[in-house]
Amino acid sequence: MAKKVITFGEVMMRLSPPGYEKFAQASSFELVYGGGEANVAISCAYLGMKAAHVTRFPDNALGKAATQFLRKHWLSTEHVIYGDDMMGKYFLEKGAVHRPSEVVYEREGSSFSLIEPSMVNWEDVLKDADWFHWTGITPAISEGAAMCCLDAIKTANKLGITVSGDINSRSNMWKYGKTMQEVIPDLVQNCDVVITSSRGIREMFGLGQPEDKFQSLAKQLINLFPNIKKVVKKTRRPISASHHQIQGKMWNGEAYIKAEMLNITHIIDRVGTGDAFAAGLIYGLLHYDDEKALDFASAACALKHTVPGDVNLVSLENVLSLMEGDTSGAIRR
Amino acid sequence: MAKKVITFGEVMMRLSPPGYEKFAQASSFELVYGGGEANVAISCAYLGMKAAHVTRFPDNALGKAATQFLRKHWLSTEHVIYGDDMMGKYFLEKGAVHRPSEVVYEREGSSFSLIEPSMVNWEDVLKDADWFHWTGITPAISEGAAMCCLDAIKTANKLGITVSGDINSRSNMWKYGKTMQEVIPDLVQNCDVVITSSRGIREMFGLGQPEDKFQSLAKQLINLFPNIKKVVKKTRRPISASHHQIQGKMWNGEAYIKAEMLNITHIIDRVGTGDAFAAGLIYGLLHYDDEKALDFASAACALKHTVPGDVNLVSLENVLSLMEGDTSGAIRR
Amino acid sequence: MAKKVITFGEVMMRLSPPGYEKFAQASSFELVYGGGEANVAISCAYLGMKAAHVTRFPDNALGKAATQFLRKHWLSTEHVIYGDDMMGKYFLEKGAVHRPSEVVYEREGSSFSLIEPSMVNWEDVLKDADWFHWTGITPAISEGAAMCCLDAIKTANKLGITVSGDINSRSNMWKYGKTMQEVIPDLVQNCDVVITSSRGIREMFGLGQPEDKFQSLAKQLINLFPNIKKVVKKTRRPISASHHQIQGKMWNGEAYIKAEMLNITHIIDRVGTGDAFAAGLIYGLLHYDDEKALDFASAACALKHTVPGDVNLVSLENVLSLMEGDTSGAIRR
Amino acid sequence: MAKKVITFGEVMMRLSPPGYEKFAQASSFELVYGGGEANVAISCAYLGMKAAHVTRFPDNALGKAATQFLRKHWLSTEHVIYGDDMMGKYFLEKGAVHRPSEVVYEREGSSFSLIEPSMVNWEDVLKDADWFHWTGITPAISEGAAMCCLDAIKTANKLGITVSGDINSRSNMWKYGKTMQEVIPDLVQNCDVVITSSRGIREMFGLGQPEDKFQSLAKQLINLFPNIKKVVKKTRRPISASHHQIQGKMWNGEAYIKAEMLNITHIIDRVGTGDAFAAGLIYGLLHYDDEKALDFASAACALKHTVPGDVNLVSLENVLSLMEGDTSGAIRR
Amino acid sequence: MAKKVITFGEVMMRLSPPGYEKFAQASSFELVYGGGEANVAISCAYLGMKAAHVTRFPDNALGKAATQFLRKHWLSTEHVIYGDDMMGKYFLEKGAVHRPSEVVYEREGSSFSLIEPSMVNWEDVLKDADWFHWTGITPAISEGAAMCCLDAIKTANKLGITVSGDINSRSNMWKYGKTMQEVIPDLVQNCDVVITSSRGIREMFGLGQPEDKFQSLAKQLINLFPNIKKVVKKTRRPISASHHQIQGKMWNGEAYIKAEMLNITHIIDRVGTGDAFAAGLIYGLLHYDDEKALDFASAACALKHTVPGDVNLVSLENVLSLMEGDTSGAIRR
Amino acid sequence: MAKKVITFGEVMMRLSPPGYEKFAQASSFELVYGGGEANVAISCAYLGMKAAHVTRFPDNALGKAATQFLRKHWLSTEHVIYGDDMMGKYFLEKGAVHRPSEVVYEREGSSFSLIEPSMVNWEDVLKDADWFHWTGITPAISEGAAMCCLDAIKTANKLGITVSGDINSRSNMWKYGKTMQEVIPDLVQNCDVVITSSRGIREMFGLGQPEDKFQSLAKQLINLFPNIKKVVKKTRRPISASHHQIQGKMWNGEAYIKAEMLNITHIIDRVGTGDAFAAGLIYGLLHYDDEKALDFASAACALKHTVPGDVNLVSLENVLSLMEGDTSGAIRR
Repeated sequence: MAKKVITFGEVMMRLSPPGYEKFAQASSFELVYGGGEANVAISCAYLGMKAAHVTRFPDNALGKAATQFLRKHWLSTEHVIYGDDMMGKYFLEKGAVHRPSEVVYEREGSSFSLIEPSMVNWEDVLKDADWFHWTGITPAISEGAAMCCLDAIKTANKLGITVSGDINSRSNMWKYGKTMQEVIPDLVQNCDVVITSSRGIREMFGLGQPEDKFQSLAKQLINLFPNIKKVVKKTRRPISASHHQIQGKMWNGEAYIKAEMLNITHIIDRVGTGDAFAAGLIYGLLHYDDEKALDFASAACALKHTVPGDVNLVSLENVLSLMEGDTSGAIRR
Repeated sequence: MAKKVITFGEVMMRLSPPGYEKFAQASSFELVYGGGEANVAISCAYLGMKAAHVTRFPDNALGKAATQFLRKHWLSTEHVIYGDDMMGKYFLEKGAVHRPSEVVYEREGSSFSLIEPSMVNWEDVLKDADWFHWTGITPAISEGAAMCCLDAIKTANKLGITVSGDINSRSNMWKYGKTMQEVIPDLVQNCDVVITSSRGIREMFGLGQPEDKFQSLAKQLINLFPNIKKVVKKTRRPISASHHQIQGKMWNGEAYIKAEMLNITHIIDRVGTGDAFAAGLIYGLLHYDDEKALDFASAACALKHTVPGDVNLVSLENVLSLMEGDTSGAIRR
Repeated sequence: MAKKVITFGEVMMRLSPPGYEKFAQASSFELVYGGGEANVAISCAYLGMKAAHVTRFPDNALGKAATQFLRKHWLSTEHVIYGDDMMGKYFLEKGAVHRPSEVVYEREGSSFSLIEPSMVNWEDVLKDADWFHWTGITPAISEGAAMCCLDAIKTANKLGITVSGDINSRSNMWKYGKTMQEVIPDLVQNCDVVITSSRGIREMFGLGQPEDKFQSLAKQLINLFPNIKKVVKKTRRPISASHHQIQGKMWNGEAYIKAEMLNITHIIDRVGTGDAFAAGLIYGLLHYDDEKALDFASAACALKHTVPGDVNLVSLENVLSLMEGDTSGAIRR
Repeated sequence: MAKKVITFGEVMMRLSPPGYEKFAQASSFELVYGGGEANVAISCAYLGMKAAHVTRFPDNALGKAATQFLRKHWLSTEHVIYGDDMMGKYFLEKGAVHRPSEVVYEREGSSFSLIEPSMVNWEDVLKDADWFHWTGITPAISEGAAMCCLDAIKTANKLGITVSGDINSRSNMWKYGKTMQEVIPDLVQNCDVVITSSRGIREMFGLGQPEDKFQSLAKQLINLFPNIKKVVKKTRRPISASHHQIQGKMWNGEAYIKAEMLNITHIIDRVGTGDAFAAGLIYGLLHYDDEKALDFASAACALKHTVPGDVNLVSLENVLSLMEGDTSGAIRR
Repeated sequence: MAKKVITFGEVMMRLSPPGYEKFAQASSFELVYGGGEANVAISCAYLGMKAAHVTRFPDNALGKAATQFLRKHWLSTEHVIYGDDMMGKYFLEKGAVHRPSEVVYEREGSSFSLIEPSMVNWEDVLKDADWFHWTGITPAISEGAAMCCLDAIKTANKLGITVSGDINSRSNMWKYGKTMQEVIPDLVQNCDVVITSSRGIREMFGLGQPEDKFQSLAKQLINLFPNIKKVVKKTRRPISASHHQIQGKMWNGEAYIKAEMLNITHIIDRVGTGDAFAAGLIYGLLHYDDEKALDFASAACALKHTVPGDVNLVSLENVLSLMEGDTSGAIRR
Repeated sequence: MAKKVITFGEVMMRLSPPGYEKFAQASSFELVYGGGEANVAISCAYLGMKAAHVTRFPDNALGKAATQFLRKHWLSTEHVIYGDDMMGKYFLEKGAVHRPSEVVYEREGSSFSLIEPSMVNWEDVLKDADWFHWTGITPAISEGAAMCCLDAIKTANKLGITVSGDINSRSNMWKYGKTMQEVIPDLVQNCDVVITSSRGIREMFGLGQPEDKFQSLAKQLINLFPNIKKVVKKTRRPISASHHQIQGKMWNGEAYIKAEMLNITHIIDRVGTGDAFAAGLIYGLLHYDDEKALDFASAACALKHTVPGDVNLVSLENVLSLMEGDTSGAIRR
């Protein structure tokens, strides 16, 4: 019986000039949709899990089209809410080699940002789920979104559902009057799995001495919030915009585990690779031991770099094959 | 020496599915830019006039790209202002036959809507202009936009520049706390040329008895605001979404003039056809007598229906040829 | 509470050269999916009903992609079966004016044609449905498909679910050893609503004298199979490949009803217009009286001619507006 | 045994903005190839004849690609000559309704214009042909082209091959120092079939009184050049750029024949429709009597208006079906 | 005088999502055609040879379009046979880095698979040829195809034409009741040049001890079939799906020759690279000594990786330049 | 106050098959415009300078469209001249790895080549400029172009405007009767900055002993023309068509400066990279010291390899970031 994951967060329309065109050159935009949490849900669905996403879209043809994108990629959308009239959006200009990708967000005042806790019945949403996943972007969007997220986590705790949070330190996203230091700890303390970075642990929780590295910081975080079982990070080393190295690391309370470093030498689309890592981690922790789960997450993340769009559409076979060391990309017939 | 027109108003990014695709089918959007007033300026530029547009765009790569669209289509953009970070937008799904086109706007909170009078030096902008044109959309957007528009009209009056306004009655656009009845009259009273409709005259100015037709309403409007010299309307009779008839009419204080009715049997893009009419009227009144000006405006309007995008890119020769009765569309080699 | 329709039949990959290119010119194909019955289900879904489709696809990435198309267009796909490895296909070259569209089918040996009755549990599929719809194409494909279809109809009868069949006389499709005259009557006799043509009634059931018209033939069909309540036809008069007239007609056992004739003057895509009619009829009969239902079906059919692809994506509002006589296609903002 | 036609003339690269875009909007060009005479050959090939085209292309990758276009469309290209380095070109902006299509030529100094009579061995080229076709464009291009054309006609006469010429009066094309009045008569006098217009007969041969119509002018032309057996014209009446009427007329020395007038209500591409007429006439005269041949030519011409590109890709069946009066464009499955 | 090669085998329609899209994302397919043997013929034609391909296509517009593809790429298609109605097809999803390309075949029951020996007159086909080439795919398709292939080889032997075979061990392709071990030896024993692999020699002919390498296996194969003059293999080492190394090796009965290993660091399309190698080998053996021929084959193979589609469109100059060591890819003006 | 640069030279229409298609595969061309000198001007404009370009285009819709391209990319086009009727053109087929890009020029007889000195009023053009830039291509095109260029340089000298020339040795471009050795020295002697190569100095000026390297040759050039202050070269080492190394070098009369070598590992478009270097150098010398200017030029050049089209659209921030050593291409949000 397939495991079921629930995710919650904004899904944005992504508009990008074709190929490597710059904004100044575009006469059309390629259209996909993405958002950290929905990306995780879709990725899990392609790996064979059941997945549903909770979000809020404008009550118009654009909101419907966004829902259709989620449905197409195998998500249950029965808990999508419609209201207000602005779709969150981001514009992506794809870089290469030394030229950075450029992202312009337009998400202020979006339908999702106007969500209120009363709009979601979490008991109903989570009733047959195995896992709930959120990211640090959601509580940064609005107070309503943060409160919704907190409700979800508390309900999950009550129902005995595993909770993971992927939280990075992006202080410039917090514009509605609260700081991440005020909001994030309440959300994190009831998580089972936290994906973050050394800088994240320092800045969000005020932990760590200057010389502390990730393993030490992760221990301190678990000391602070003993409900957390695993602290995970994904290290990315960009050789250029076209070539990255990535490596997963985990402190599980007992051991410090490192996955193999993977080279992605010809990047197609790096957006959503962190979400692919999170999805791989969820799938991995539900099906394997910690070491294998981390390898699985790293392989899933590496493969996402080769898929255009925000979401990781690779299959379980693809991930397993890379995880077992086949980096040849030989044709499958 | 070419005459110069100045226009003022919002320019939106226009995103539309290719061909006749519905929003539910789109995996890309065609990207152009448009706005009633800039459409007029560009159309005038293609007819051979000098033209500059005043607007406000986000201070980012998208705002720059919008400016580049105006420059490409021959406008002076030295008076474009940059600030804030949201681009006004509209999404257009193109209809056909009995299926209506669908438009979704996203312009609330746009950079343009946050414009303030102090941001534009109208004396400088208008110093060598022959004509200033505005539309009723601008004062509906925000109080700042309305005040800017009023400043522009007053400055034009002071400098002896002809002013035209294209004002329709769209009460549902007025959301910032003032009604069109409160704001529009002040703007209209100092115009030389008003393009409107019978319904517009009734609703915006409270004029007319139930039995009054356009000619009578136009007279009443001039009685009310004696500065107005000409009241013009463009009648559109839609046979279907693919076939329209259009006809220009004018009361010039002395005579009631009607242009020939024109059939557009295979519409390519009907957005911006009213703006093409206004541009044709401006060009016509600057170069011909009233009758010929109205014929010119009607012909320009008819031709716009065959040009994809918001803006009328046809040449003076095209308009003259149709105005002189050549409806054959014979190949020009 | 939305009504639910279940449909059953093959869904084919549709490959067509862009625009009006001929096969000899194509260097790419536009890809959509379609099939008479699924088209009906999707159309019902866009009108606001619940809809599920039962079919069989190859057990590979192409079969999955076909399912994703159905999901995107709001269908439940939990009853899709996977097996074997050939996707049914058709190639469509779009005609215009005097040039006919050309269709090349490749459906022999498809996964669907290899379906067996044991593969579908109709009690489960139909358990909460209000309507079951099939077409005469399905029993022509293979004996297994015909038997499946018969099972479905019988189960629907047992569960008290309304059954409609859209059956035309295409003797050249019957290649597996049985004739339509042998197979169709058994399927039709337990239907509530039959959509067919005069020629269909003559050829499939051997009814009618040479001088008999549709009304008389419809009566004879009901005499033969008293379970049938309504016999409906859609008359199409092609002025050219670009301009058709369509009109719905119905004998409901008591009255002979004709909808207004509708002109479609600029056809975008005529494939699936019969299915749009059927969907409109189902929606109409579930919500209105017979006359209004027939008007609704005709309007839905007319609108489909303006939508690219096999499926009718127009909204309830669009159909109601045309049904109420608004043929102007005015922009909806 | 299929009949064989040989044609001679320039083939140009045709570059056109997608859809109805104007030159000012294009960021890409659609690429096809065309030229009056090659268009005739290709059209004949699609009707089932053998066909070869003689031309001269630059000796580079672009010249090769042009040859490949001819090969793809079934022509023999063994007599294509390569040399010099400029490809003839034309740019086409497609009009609609009242907006004319615009054509910009760039053919001065092209490889074809530099052709010399010594480059073609007409005895070899024409050895197994049934028909030779040329147009009045070729002798207008350069003295070398005119001399080549004369050689071809003389050789065809010697070998007993039927010769047709499609000659219009385009005095502005003649730039190399000779006038059409000096050159054309020598070429025409040895033709069997001449396609031209009343104006053409007047201007090129100085025939006719002001009141003379086509029939009378055609008689005078045959009086002047008794070798001519048939004089044919195609009348085009443009209702708009999107809707034309066409009608074929012929004086065969004995009778004045008119084909039915055909309406093309939704034009896709009108370039090459005259060539489609000529090809239809050649096929018709080789297979039918004069009346049927003219009907066939008219039907072929009408159908070309629905095919994008310069060349008529319709089949014999398509033409026969329209010629027999089926204007419905019903789908062929 | 250019040498002439004849090839025989199935040509499939190749349908692939644009760029790096996965099947789940595609809304269009890019359309080319390919098949191991035709790829060789086309490649030879681009190198300057004469080339004809023998195959069988459905007797419909799709079969004609496939033929047109071959004609466009310079092949003689006079021996193409038409019959039945299914086009062989394959769907290709392009991978990158660690993500493998995915291929889905649909070729069962294709027109080619239904070919019968009586349909081809090999004496006529081969009468002026210098070389005949086949691959191990053809006899795997059907008994008819295998028998046709055997006839071709025997006729070539009789006419003194050199025969090459490119045979790999793909046992899963053999579905019609015979095994490759039963069929292949008869075909191979009359070949002059065999391209294969160590595994191929072991599995198809039962040769070799576990420790035997390619040189030894090649000797054993020649011992078994003394008519064979050269046994060749192309070693491919995939670093990733985007970066391969390839190297040609040959045992010519006297010496063991190795070409330089070539790095292809940014693969565009790896399909058909083996065929490019075979074509290079044929060209090389017809024009150079064995060492140079192998270098030529390797260079041709390397270049194909940079050409989209199945077929190698590079010129003789391109291959010679790389063969002579210029790996810079400097612009040719 | 932004500095202003003036450039002079031909702008060509650039037509290239999409992606990595070869000419033999193209059914469309991507359309941009480019020319060495205009590329420099546009690049300077994107870096924040004022820039105007002087050129001559055909007096038709294509010439207008070319001007619009320059306007879109921020250039002043008030000094563009229109006349005659041929647009200069080049066709570009993009290579990869070992496959070279192929370029076909068609510029003979272009409107620009027919320019005459009397057509430009250089005093007016240059009146408020800070820098004038030309390249060695211009004097190679025609005597008129060479004379125009000389006038420009002399006027710049008179007005005290800095002059830079980018001159390479392309003797095969010189076809109008003069050699580069006759023409170039007069142009170079009044330049302040010369970008060239060792081979250029040898061949154009007859300087150098066989053993002399760039530093020595540069000194000799300054000895010959003491007005020259800096001699600069850009070394390019192509690893393959997809991977280049570039490095800037300068002799400024006192020191020999080398910028860091930069690797461009995944080239998108290498056309115009030399122009990007020149633009970077101009910007650099106007704002920084020589060392930093050379670093800036090298970074600008490296970044251009990642931008499709002829022109470098990167921002000042992009160049500064790379110049300061950030080669990671991290996403900018």
